[in-house]
Amino acid sequence: MPSQSPLQPVLAPVLTPFDGELRVDPARFIRLCRWLVDAGVGLAVFGTTSEANSLAVSEKIELLDALAAAGVPARSVVPGTGCCAFPDTVALTRAAIGHGCAGVLMLPPFYYKNVSDDGLFASYSEVIERVGDARLRIYLYHIPPVAQVPLGIALIERLLERYPDTIAGIKDSGGDFGFTRQLIETFAARGFAVYAGSETFLLPTLAAGGAGCISATANANPAAMLRLARDWRAPDAAAQQAALDAVRHAFQKFPLVPALKTAVAQATGDDAWRTTRPPLVPLDAAQRAALLAGMPKDFVLPSI
Amino acid sequence: MPSQSPLQPVLAPVLTPFDGELRVDPARFIRLCRWLVDAGVGLAVFGTTSEANSLAVSEKIELLDALAAAGVPARSVVPGTGCCAFPDTVALTRAAIGHGCAGVLMLPPFYYKNVSDDGLFASYSEVIERVGDARLRIYLYHIPPVAQVPLGIALIERLLERYPDTIAGIKDSGGDFGFTRQLIETFAARGFAVYAGSETFLLPTLAAGGAGCISATANANPAAMLRLARDWRAPDAAAQQAALDAVRHAFQKFPLVPALKTAVAQATGDDAWRTTRPPLVPLDAAQRAALLAGMPKDFVLPSI
Repeated sequence: MPSQSPLQPVLAPVLTPFDGELRVDPARFIRLCRWLVDAGVGLAVFGTTSEANSLAVSEKIELLDALAAAGVPARSVVPGTGCCAFPDTVALTRAAIGHGCAGVLMLPPFYYKNVSDDGLFASYSEVIERVGDARLRIYLYHIPPVAQVPLGIALIERLLERYPDTIAGIKDSGGDFGFTRQLIETFAARGFAVYAGSETFLLPTLAAGGAGCISATANANPAAMLRLARDWRAPDAAAQQAALDAVRHAFQKFPLVPALKTAVAQATGDDAWRTTRPPLVPLDAAQRAALLAGMPKDFVLPSI
Repeated sequence: MPSQSPLQPVLAPVLTPFDGELRVDPARFIRLCRWLVDAGVGLAVFGTTSEANSLAVSEKIELLDALAAAGVPARSVVPGTGCCAFPDTVALTRAAIGHGCAGVLMLPPFYYKNVSDDGLFASYSEVIERVGDARLRIYLYHIPPVAQVPLGIALIERLLERYPDTIAGIKDSGGDFGFTRQLIETFAARGFAVYAGSETFLLPTLAAGGAGCISATANANPAAMLRLARDWRAPDAAAQQAALDAVRHAFQKFPLVPALKTAVAQATGDDAWRTTRPPLVPLDAAQRAALLAGMPKDFVLPSI
């Protein structure tokens, strides 16, 4: 049985739009967020796909404020708030709680490598104690291919034991389903929600008792993911999973964030969406053409 | 011949003190900075050893302001200003220029991995153009073991060609002297100052035509480094290098930043210096004793 997570079973790490001066663009951001909420997925704003670590803390707070002012329901919003410096993590997490967000997705501090579990425990503990708010729900963010700072079973056990009401789940972007399964088997019975970091693991994650997925591609293909998340016991579940995989693989032939921005530019008819902040680089014209031509024949890009 | 760098041949990535609430502590910071300046070394504040990425931008600006207010000469100060998000890098770099600092040491954005040279060039270019100040002098910071984002020869060539007056040098903390030598052979004739990232490479770096070193251990052993930097042609240079190596190796048996903080706590008689911010963890009592007992017999910890 999937965990009884209070979040949606599919969340999108929402792409962040920039204007011609590379400023964050609240109006385009709100438009995409509204479309995703209407599609039924949650908003994991400020994830890796969102170029969150290319944004200043003040820019993230500006976007959270804009979402609230636009009436986007905070119960659908799970912002990434984990920064290298705990004062930044505390400030962003407080802002998220202040807006009533459903939870936060929290990277460990990711500059120093080979740090101890004591150091990682202290990192999370320091933030939890300083935020000091019973409403805080933390989804840990395990993404060793990018952050290069993995979160292991012993650390999670220790966090759950000390903060059972606060540590609510994890996004596992490690790419190793064996670890995802271990997380579910070890922690799901305690209400700990395990989300796969890619929809390529959606069916096995749900079948093992996980909560769903938080996946980059949900920016461009949310409906099909949500259908599988709801119908994962249906006879065609494996076929649905294969169709999701085909779309994912078409995107993954290119740098993923610029590829998804290309898709959203196409889906919105708004080329401004192509813009990335350095160190990411937009796809060039040949790449854009190859990406769109390389999509599976039965995949129709939504109209956003 | 060593490069004619306007900086000192030895710079310390100054340790950052924290008080009991883990706040940055300007008074202790100024005391250590003054002692280091009096010892003759430059102040590479906000380096890896400084736990710079565990500090918010506003905290770094507060410490820069405090240094200036205390009359520490800005010509000795080369702050680390490279953050993941370019608005942060621009803000810190502007603050450094505003104080008249001799230059800045600039990490590439370090969250995203396997990024292209186009993306890294754009990262530096965006900052240089936005800062828009002819006084800007950038020392690139190559530290692949930690940042996991290396800076290669082709990228540096491109940056030097486009910004010959701005790109002033590099700190090479890669640990591969072959690459340090290649940097010197390729770029030093154009006035590009190559600093080793550890004093264990000080003599070969100077002999090859490099500028010196920017090294963690300069917080605790500046005089001996400076002596070798000045006397590297002396008959006892190899013996001096061996003595430096012995001290370095004694520190490196422990996590380096907490070990250096232990040494400065001992040298100042002020235990508050032991405090680190997570994810780093202070040495425990047994480690502290082992560290101090394990120093070479001929090494005397300075009195700070």
